[in-house]
Amino acid sequence: MNRSIVRYLVGRILLLVGILMFLPIAVGLLYQERGQILFAYGSVAFACCFFSLLLVWRKPQNTRFYAKEGLVICSLSWILASLFGAIPLVLTHEYPNFIDAFFEISSGFTTTGATVATNVEILSKTTLFWRSFTHLIGGMGVLVFVLALLPKSDPDNVYMMKAEMPGPSFGKILSGLKGTARMLYAIYLIMTLVLFVLLVIAKMPVFDAICHAMGTAGTGGFGIKNSSILWYNSSSINLILSVGMLVFGINFNLYYFLLLRKFKDFFQDEELHWYLGIVAIAFILICLNLWSVYKNKAQMAIDVFFSVSSIITTTGYSTADFAAWPLFSHIILLLLMMVGAMAGSTAGGLKVSRVTMFGKVLRAEMLHQREPARIIPIRFNRKTISSTLIRSLFGYFVAYAFVFITLLLIVSFESPDFITAFSTVAATFNNIGPGLGAVGPTANYAWLSPYAKLVLSLGMITGRLEIWPVIILFSWRSWKKT
Amino acid sequence: MNRSIVRYLVGRILLLVGILMFLPIAVGLLYQERGQILFAYGSVAFACCFFSLLLVWRKPQNTRFYAKEGLVICSLSWILASLFGAIPLVLTHEYPNFIDAFFEISSGFTTTGATVATNVEILSKTTLFWRSFTHLIGGMGVLVFVLALLPKSDPDNVYMMKAEMPGPSFGKILSGLKGTARMLYAIYLIMTLVLFVLLVIAKMPVFDAICHAMGTAGTGGFGIKNSSILWYNSSSINLILSVGMLVFGINFNLYYFLLLRKFKDFFQDEELHWYLGIVAIAFILICLNLWSVYKNKAQMAIDVFFSVSSIITTTGYSTADFAAWPLFSHIILLLLMMVGAMAGSTAGGLKVSRVTMFGKVLRAEMLHQREPARIIPIRFNRKTISSTLIRSLFGYFVAYAFVFITLLLIVSFESPDFITAFSTVAATFNNIGPGLGAVGPTANYAWLSPYAKLVLSLGMITGRLEIWPVIILFSWRSWKKT
Repeated sequence: MNRSIVRYLVGRILLLVGILMFLPIAVGLLYQERGQILFAYGSVAFACCFFSLLLVWRKPQNTRFYAKEGLVICSLSWILASLFGAIPLVLTHEYPNFIDAFFEISSGFTTTGATVATNVEILSKTTLFWRSFTHLIGGMGVLVFVLALLPKSDPDNVYMMKAEMPGPSFGKILSGLKGTARMLYAIYLIMTLVLFVLLVIAKMPVFDAICHAMGTAGTGGFGIKNSSILWYNSSSINLILSVGMLVFGINFNLYYFLLLRKFKDFFQDEELHWYLGIVAIAFILICLNLWSVYKNKAQMAIDVFFSVSSIITTTGYSTADFAAWPLFSHIILLLLMMVGAMAGSTAGGLKVSRVTMFGKVLRAEMLHQREPARIIPIRFNRKTISSTLIRSLFGYFVAYAFVFITLLLIVSFESPDFITAFSTVAATFNNIGPGLGAVGPTANYAWLSPYAKLVLSLGMITGRLEIWPVIILFSWRSWKKT
Repeated sequence: MNRSIVRYLVGRILLLVGILMFLPIAVGLLYQERGQILFAYGSVAFACCFFSLLLVWRKPQNTRFYAKEGLVICSLSWILASLFGAIPLVLTHEYPNFIDAFFEISSGFTTTGATVATNVEILSKTTLFWRSFTHLIGGMGVLVFVLALLPKSDPDNVYMMKAEMPGPSFGKILSGLKGTARMLYAIYLIMTLVLFVLLVIAKMPVFDAICHAMGTAGTGGFGIKNSSILWYNSSSINLILSVGMLVFGINFNLYYFLLLRKFKDFFQDEELHWYLGIVAIAFILICLNLWSVYKNKAQMAIDVFFSVSSIITTTGYSTADFAAWPLFSHIILLLLMMVGAMAGSTAGGLKVSRVTMFGKVLRAEMLHQREPARIIPIRFNRKTISSTLIRSLFGYFVAYAFVFITLLLIVSFESPDFITAFSTVAATFNNIGPGLGAVGPTANYAWLSPYAKLVLSLGMITGRLEIWPVIILFSWRSWKKT
């Protein structure tokens, strides 16, 4: 482990977080909020910058780094950013203790949107902005994470999100990153801006539109009203957000293809077809299940479309209390939570590409069982997948199940029932936000013990970073000096 | 597909079932039961024999058969045996309709032990015997299934249970089978006899001891009392059965090693270590969870050991109503249900060997993520596993999840809550018997709709035969004439 490069790069990321923290202060000044609030954010922003300057002060002599360092940098950055980002919430006395604040801001940076706030409407505008802003930052972080840890030469490898970097030098990565990162960020921010404008046109107040545009872009889902999007009671807002969430669940590399006028690459993308197919099937199944529940079928269609879009993109906004829907719909929603949207987007979950691959492995194995002499090659986007990649995919599936079960066992001590425990894990580990049962859209995570909140915060970060970075961070062997 | 060999072999298996059906008639005669009952069993036994004689009448000219035919024969035999075996239960009017009877006897032949009888104590001795006897037959069927569809040259391949038979001829299989099958059957029946004697010594009535010895041998679990084993209220019976169930969850090839005095092969078996390790860990975790619930700690230890042994071996006898335990214990039990006991035993579930392999894949992938240049070989019982086998294992895992989810969605329409739906599927698909919630040890499956019962019956058979045979049976492509 090249510890000095880890220290240096984590420092640079934290410095960025510190600088970005001045933006909520600007919002606070604009809305003429209490001095205590401005002071809280101001002091933490300075402290964060000061601390990170200490980290970046001495440039590392050895700038070579490998996959391992990259993964550790990612997980450390997310954890430290959440730690610093949480402090203002305690200093302003808006959150009762540090663990609650840490849960809230991890939830923000991981673009989860699970909240421990029992009443978000009494929060200051500064804090409301900061919560939603962490979604935007987290989303950008994810895009760079995807970018940095992917072999860029082959966009089809996106679905693996593998750390296949057999030792590039620091400079090489940076120069390679700069161009593409700028382009992706431009796409990301322009799309956020378009969404903001559309929301304002649909008569959402400007501040609310900013927060919701940022929350949608990061597929985060922090609401600024207790009843989330239901509060606005507007079909046009519902529809704009439904489509907006779906759009942000698409692989950003595909938008890059659009810009390059590679329309064929966009429309022929296999993952995109499956993504839209799953949305359509889930929509139909839930509608059929709710047919006798809703009198107004148009309202049903809007509610179901919104919920499906919100859950599969792991955003977590709500317009209907889906915790009150029948069990069949619940299981569909739980499955959508685990599937998540497309790889290379800001969404969490397993990702559609992986789930598609599972299906392909299933089909190939069935054919193999029928005729054992045949070994059927597995293709994705018209390319054959290597057995190493298949093994990695298997490993990821097992790791996913392992972390899920561990979290489930921990949460089970405090949950009133199985669906609450199960959906608590599904909704945090996959970065959705609201679950079912006692953590449904009309409820929150405040009732959990500090211990469970801490574990779930780590669970959110683990899910956000696709598991391995956090496991490697906490395995002491990774830290051996090289 | 060589349809004539399928017809012929299915016929031979059904003939055996028909002949075996005369045994409950002997029991009925012994206990001087009503003529209606004797007539019911007698007529079906004759009908079954007659029908199967029609099938075996014409010997097939082409006796070559492949994996595909083997798998189809297995699933057809289980389904037809359950269909014929169910008829007497309706003719005696002990079961209200054919679907209920079919569920009960599939549950028997698949050694599941899930019941739709609300009061088993009013059933005739003939029927009670027949139910438990189907466990014994089903267990023998599983052993032959394992035997026939396994490459015998390599005992380490046991955990895959793969149909890797690139075209042996019928005669070759039969002669190869005869020796080993006789030996395994001898071990199986002698162990059942020993268990019977021990139960009688522990003062269990002779008829009850016969039924429970057969139910334990097949890891089935049909009780003949409404409160299952709790009725006997005897610690010695509890302990004998706890250990007995564990013993029948061990790979029968290992007992063969013992007979051949290959003690090292027995004691160094990796799967055995994991199996006993999982039992120990589950026992400790549940005891800790129940510490404040039980006043009598000795009773707690007995109850927990019994339940853990009963669930992991997928038997399903009960002495305590574990549905009343806390959620943490429930999740441990649900996990044990899915793990199941050792491959090559009469138990259902994923099997310890597969789960161990999952763990190894996880570990290897973690190391690979830390150092992408390294590809870590995966070993089991000191042998390296090929990438084809790993892919097959992955395929099985996906198929397992796929069938589980499908059953869960179907059951969700009728279940009162998530834990009932989830455990209904876990308890039938893994061939356990009792679940949690509304299908707990003190409840039964009678309340489900005929539709759900039918689907779950197929689910039990699918789980029993390790998924592929049933999928291949129902894919029309398999039936193309060759």
